Amino acid sequence: MIGGGFAGLGVVRGLRHAALDLLLIDRTNHHVFQPLLYQVATAGLAAPSIAAPLRRILRQQANVTVYLGEVSAIDVSARRVHAGERSFEYDYLVVATGTRHAYFGHDEWAQHAPGLKSLEDAFGIRARILDAFEQAEMSDDQAQRAAWLSFVVVGGGPTGVELAGTLAEIAHHTLRQEFRRIDPTRSRVRLVEAGPRVLPAFPASLSAAAQRQLAHLGVEVSIGRAITAVDAHGVRIGDEFMAARTVLWAAGVAASPLGRQLGAELDRAGRVQVATDLSVPAHPEIFVAGDLASVTGAAGAVPGIAPAAKQMGRHVARNLQARLAGRASAAFRYRHYGLLATVGRMAAVVDMGWLRLSGLLAWWFWLLAHIYFLIGFRNRLVVLIDWASAYFTYERGARIIVRSDQSG
Amino acid sequence: MIGGGFAGLGVVRGLRHAALDLLLIDRTNHHVFQPLLYQVATAGLAAPSIAAPLRRILRQQANVTVYLGEVSAIDVSARRVHAGERSFEYDYLVVATGTRHAYFGHDEWAQHAPGLKSLEDAFGIRARILDAFEQAEMSDDQAQRAAWLSFVVVGGGPTGVELAGTLAEIAHHTLRQEFRRIDPTRSRVRLVEAGPRVLPAFPASLSAAAQRQLAHLGVEVSIGRAITAVDAHGVRIGDEFMAARTVLWAAGVAASPLGRQLGAELDRAGRVQVATDLSVPAHPEIFVAGDLASVTGAAGAVPGIAPAAKQMGRHVARNLQARLAGRASAAFRYRHYGLLATVGRMAAVVDMGWLRLSGLLAWWFWLLAHIYFLIGFRNRLVVLIDWASAYFTYERGARIIVRSDQSG
Repeated sequence: MIGGGFAGLGVVRGLRHAALDLLLIDRTNHHVFQPLLYQVATAGLAAPSIAAPLRRILRQQANVTVYLGEVSAIDVSARRVHAGERSFEYDYLVVATGTRHAYFGHDEWAQHAPGLKSLEDAFGIRARILDAFEQAEMSDDQAQRAAWLSFVVVGGGPTGVELAGTLAEIAHHTLRQEFRRIDPTRSRVRLVEAGPRVLPAFPASLSAAAQRQLAHLGVEVSIGRAITAVDAHGVRIGDEFMAARTVLWAAGVAASPLGRQLGAELDRAGRVQVATDLSVPAHPEIFVAGDLASVTGAAGAVPGIAPAAKQMGRHVARNLQARLAGRASAAFRYRHYGLLATVGRMAAVVDMGWLRLSGLLAWWFWLLAHIYFLIGFRNRLVVLIDWASAYFTYERGARIIVRSDQSG
Repeated sequence: MIGGGFAGLGVVRGLRHAALDLLLIDRTNHHVFQPLLYQVATAGLAAPSIAAPLRRILRQQANVTVYLGEVSAIDVSARRVHAGERSFEYDYLVVATGTRHAYFGHDEWAQHAPGLKSLEDAFGIRARILDAFEQAEMSDDQAQRAAWLSFVVVGGGPTGVELAGTLAEIAHHTLRQEFRRIDPTRSRVRLVEAGPRVLPAFPASLSAAAQRQLAHLGVEVSIGRAITAVDAHGVRIGDEFMAARTVLWAAGVAASPLGRQLGAELDRAGRVQVATDLSVPAHPEIFVAGDLASVTGAAGAVPGIAPAAKQMGRHVARNLQARLAGRASAAFRYRHYGLLATVGRMAAVVDMGWLRLSGLLAWWFWLLAHIYFLIGFRNRLVVLIDWASAYFTYERGARIIVRSDQSG
C-alpha cells in the first residue's frame, strides 16, 4: 500500500479482518483531512486539528505495519518497491499517491506561486499570507505597500474559491484595527480563472451564485483570463501585469510520478488508466485508487474528491479479498452523493443532484458535513470550538509565523 | 520596547492609558506562553493553543505600533535602535529580550542537543522525538535501534524535568501498540543533572519528591553527573558514554546579547545589572525587564519565571509614567507567590512557602494555574479539551512531523 490518504486508508481499513500482512508506506507520519487543508493555510485551524498520525489511526489493526518513507521506484517485473535504502517485495500492490499541482510546463512559477496539497504547503502559504501584511506595514513605499496588499489566486476550482474567499475575510475582517500604518481592508484579492466560470464541476446556476458570493466578500473575479507569467513581483494576466507579492496556485493537477512506473496507459494529467476493477490492465496484482486513478463511470469521469477516493479504497479492499478467495474481482461503481464547495463566511454551494443550495444554508450544510467526516472525536470538538469562536469574533486561531527547518 | 514576552507585554499593557507613542519590536509575530512550550515540544498541544499574535493582543491599544523585526544594534548615545534596514529613535527604551540556552562554551553541541526557548525550538524537538521512534522501527541493527530509543535530557531544572517526564509518558503509554517491530515501552529516558538534586530552586523535600515521581514514570535520574561531550551518536556523562540519538538541552541560560550594548555591568550569565528601579545606571532612559534583568531583592535573586517578568514589566510601566509626570521612579519589589513544576501525568511539585504539595494534588494545582493564566478564552478551552482527552486516552494531539522551510 503506497499512500495514507483517503484511498490508501480505505484499502487498509477495508482489510482489517483479512489474514494478510499489510505494509503501508507514506512520506509523512500523518493522514491529512484534505478538504480542510485550506483552513490551515489561512490560519483558521491548527495542523493537529485536521491531521492524525497514521500509527494512531491504525494502532488497533495488528495486520498492518506503517513505514515512513518515500517510494523512489516500483519494479513491476520483480514485484519490488524501493523506498530509500530499503526495498519491499509484494504479492499485491496498491498505489494511492494522489496528485500534485501542475504549472503547465512552467515549473519556475512554483517558487512564486505555491500550491496547496500537503501540510508543508499549508504552512508555507500561511507564513506568506501573514508576512505580506507585516511587510506592507513596514514598507514606506506606496507602490510596494500596494503590491504586498495584493493577492492573486490562480484557478477557480473549489480550492481557489476557498482560498480567495478566506483571504478576503482575513483582509476585511480578521486584521481590522491591528495595523497602524496600513489599512488591511484596502487589500485586493483577485481570483483568476481561465475557463468560462468558477467551480466548473457545478451547475452553471451555482457557479453564478458562488461568483456573486465572492464579489460580496470583496473578491475580484476575473473569468476567461489566463496567467501568462509569474514572478516575485506579480503576475501577468493575459497582457495585463498586476503587481502582487502573494500569488497562490490552485489551477492544475498532475498525477504522482509513480503512476508512470506501472506499465499502464496514462491520461493527459498523468493519471493511470485502470481496468474497471481498478487494477492495472497488464498487472492484475497492482491496483490504483484515489486521485491517481483515471476512471470513467456511467455518469462520466469520477471526480477527484474525498468520497470518491474512499469508495475506491474500499472497493480495492473487496477486490483483493475476492482474488485471495479465488473469486473474480468486481467492477467499481462510483456512487455520487454530491459536491460541496465553500466560498467563505456563511457562503457555500451544494449540489446534491436533487438539491441545490447556495448561501447560508449551503454553508451550514458544508460545515456539518465536514465536521462529521473529520477523523476523531477530539478533532471534531476542537474544530467546532475554533469555528464557533471564529464565527463570532472573526479571529483566526492559528496566526503564527514560524521560520525553521523542522516544523508543524 | 524590544521583546513581546511576559515582561515586554507587561510594560505595553501597563501603559495602555498613557499619552505615549509606543513601538514594540519583536522577532516573531506572536507572544508565547513559555511555561507550556514543553507541551508543544512533546506533541501535547498545537502551537496556536499557547501562542497568540501580538497584533491581536494589542489591537485595542491604539498607542502601540507592532514592528516585526530583529534588533541588530542599540546606539545608546544616539538613542537609536537598529532593526534590519530601519532604525528608530527613542526617548525611553525598554529591553526585554530574555535569555537563550547556553552550552558552557561548547556551542558545537547545539546541533546535537537542541534547547527549548521558542516555538521553532519546540517544533524541532517535536520532530526529533517522533522521528526517533520511526527510525528505530525502520532500523534492522539492534544497537542502532537501542540508540534511537534512548533519550537524554540534560539539566534538572523545571524544563528538564518536564521534558523527561513527558518523554517517559510518550514512550510508555502514548505510543504503546503503534509499532510492529519495536516496543516503545523499552525506551530509555535519562535525566542528567550536574548539581546535587533536581529542581534546585525548590526545597530539598520537593526535589526528592520530584525525583521519586520521575523514577515512578520510568525516568533514570543521574545526579551530580556532568556532560563532557555530545555528538550525533550520544553523550559522555563523566567518563561513561551513552549511545542516544536524541539529546535535549535544558541546562544553562545565557542572556540575550543585546544586554551587552547598554553600557551596563553584566552578571556571569550576561544579564544586565540594573538599578533598583530597573533602569540602567548610566542610562536612566533605558529600562531592562524580565529574564534579561539581574535583580536582587530582599529574599535573594529574583527568579527567571513568568510571574517575575510580568511584575517587572508592570513596574517599568509605572516608573515610566512617574518619570513623565516629573516624579521619581520607585524601587522594584518582587512579590514571590510560589514555584510550580510539573513532572508528568498526575505528578508535580508546588512550593507556595506556606504550602508544599507533591503528587496528584500538586498536579491539579499546576493544571488549574496554567489554564487560568493562558491568554485568551479560546486557548483555555482548547487546551482543556486536549488535556482532558490526553488524560483519558494518553493520546497526544499534535503528533505531526512536518519538514519544510516555513512552518507552524
